[in-house]
Amino acid sequence: MFTHTTTIRIRYADTDQMGFVHHGNYATMYETGRVEALRSLGIAYKDVELAGILMPVIDMQSKYLKPARFDDLLTIETILKELPTSHIQFHFEVLNELGELLNTGEVKLVFINKKNHRPVRCPGPLLEKLRPFFA
Amino acid sequence: MFTHTTTIRIRYADTDQMGFVHHGNYATMYETGRVEALRSLGIAYKDVELAGILMPVIDMQSKYLKPARFDDLLTIETILKELPTSHIQFHFEVLNELGELLNTGEVKLVFINKKNHRPVRCPGPLLEKLRPFFA
Amino acid sequence: MFTHTTTIRIRYADTDQMGFVHHGNYATMYETGRVEALRSLGIAYKDVELAGILMPVIDMQSKYLKPARFDDLLTIETILKELPTSHIQFHFEVLNELGELLNTGEVKLVFINKKNHRPVRCPGPLLEKLRPFFA
Amino acid sequence: MFTHTTTIRIRYADTDQMGFVHHGNYATMYETGRVEALRSLGIAYKDVELAGILMPVIDMQSKYLKPARFDDLLTIETILKELPTSHIQFHFEVLNELGELLNTGEVKLVFINKKNHRPVRCPGPLLEKLRPFFA
Repeated sequence: MFTHTTTIRIRYADTDQMGFVHHGNYATMYETGRVEALRSLGIAYKDVELAGILMPVIDMQSKYLKPARFDDLLTIETILKELPTSHIQFHFEVLNELGELLNTGEVKLVFINKKNHRPVRCPGPLLEKLRPFFA
Repeated sequence: MFTHTTTIRIRYADTDQMGFVHHGNYATMYETGRVEALRSLGIAYKDVELAGILMPVIDMQSKYLKPARFDDLLTIETILKELPTSHIQFHFEVLNELGELLNTGEVKLVFINKKNHRPVRCPGPLLEKLRPFFA
Repeated sequence: MFTHTTTIRIRYADTDQMGFVHHGNYATMYETGRVEALRSLGIAYKDVELAGILMPVIDMQSKYLKPARFDDLLTIETILKELPTSHIQFHFEVLNELGELLNTGEVKLVFINKKNHRPVRCPGPLLEKLRPFFA
Repeated sequence: MFTHTTTIRIRYADTDQMGFVHHGNYATMYETGRVEALRSLGIAYKDVELAGILMPVIDMQSKYLKPARFDDLLTIETILKELPTSHIQFHFEVLNELGELLNTGEVKLVFINKKNHRPVRCPGPLLEKLRPFFA
């Protein structure tokens, strides 16, 4: 298993008139979680794209347990439970500064060739960085 | 069963550098779908809030089958398969102008009292408008 | 002078905890205004891009006179006071259903070649469609 | 004069199909700039709201000099050239990691009473924190 933790400060624009973070904004929090998780492994997602691979999301699930609020400094835990194959499945847990679990998410992405949009397997360099966590 | 159809024009800001609509934007499309579905029943969601009821999302699931693109005129089908109780579960299908199914979604919301955030049952007026579709 | 009018329904996600539309969302309203203005002339902005021209924004100004709210059906007036040259300057007026002027904006865009990002002049077809309004 | 510097990582969702950061997203960058500037003075903007003062934006201007891109770590310089009165005017400069100036902005906000939305003067505690920078 591979886990990584990063933090995000909730911006005013992320709230809605209910006074909470709008539920649609978690997708982008998860995105920050996995970009920073890959960076911690020495892989910049922008370099994955430069190498000709895109990673579109094909499935996303969110459970909203408690609301997040403006200026909260949230912790995003990004978890990989399996090595990627032709797809990669991330799990997320979002906690506030009190350690309360606010949200859980799962996001599944596929690897596709940037030119012809055909599915490809997980790039070797990413797989090599992840393999030690699943030994 | 209750179904309602509305359309949404994809804006430039909805795209990302992959050239597709960013996956995080479907939450707001679903939101438009259900607001317009309620309006077709004679219920303005803003009036639900004015009457003291909030409807936070507690669960959302999305499957991304094909990408949507800038300027696409998408059809959002909003479906209720069951009468609401203390929660309401919407199903969504998003299609493009060619009739291709791009995305399916499920969003579950609860009814809470605006003042104390305690759960309440589905407001009577909404239930009455929906009941004929489930007779 | 060329003017065009379109309408936009304010979505829940557009609001913030102040209970108003977040000021950052007007950029996208202006975008819808000019895309629909061009469409009314028979020009799809996506076709401009397909023809190899991008139109990045280089200057934007907004005055916020009164707040917009959730579910408001806003009118966006898009105005061109001069024929485009190497740039195009749009003026916007945003009104609510009571006819109250909520916001005014100005957005200046340039035309650039999609491949080399060099400035180019306004595409001929757009200029020809606009010329009759400035005769 | 008061100046403060913070950094922001550009997220994938911030880009559009032009491959750059969408121009509408700078409003939120400026917002982060001023929230962090106030925090550096010991003032949490959320506490300003809790004390009954809202700060809506009434004027915003942006100049887009060069594009920002996905994963850029941008520097936001937040500048106050004058002490606030019934309004507060922030200036912003946005630079990339190469030190290139990408964008400049000006945002003017007013102070209003949260309950009746009437204009009020800048709260004393904020004024006291800022005064030493303008001595």
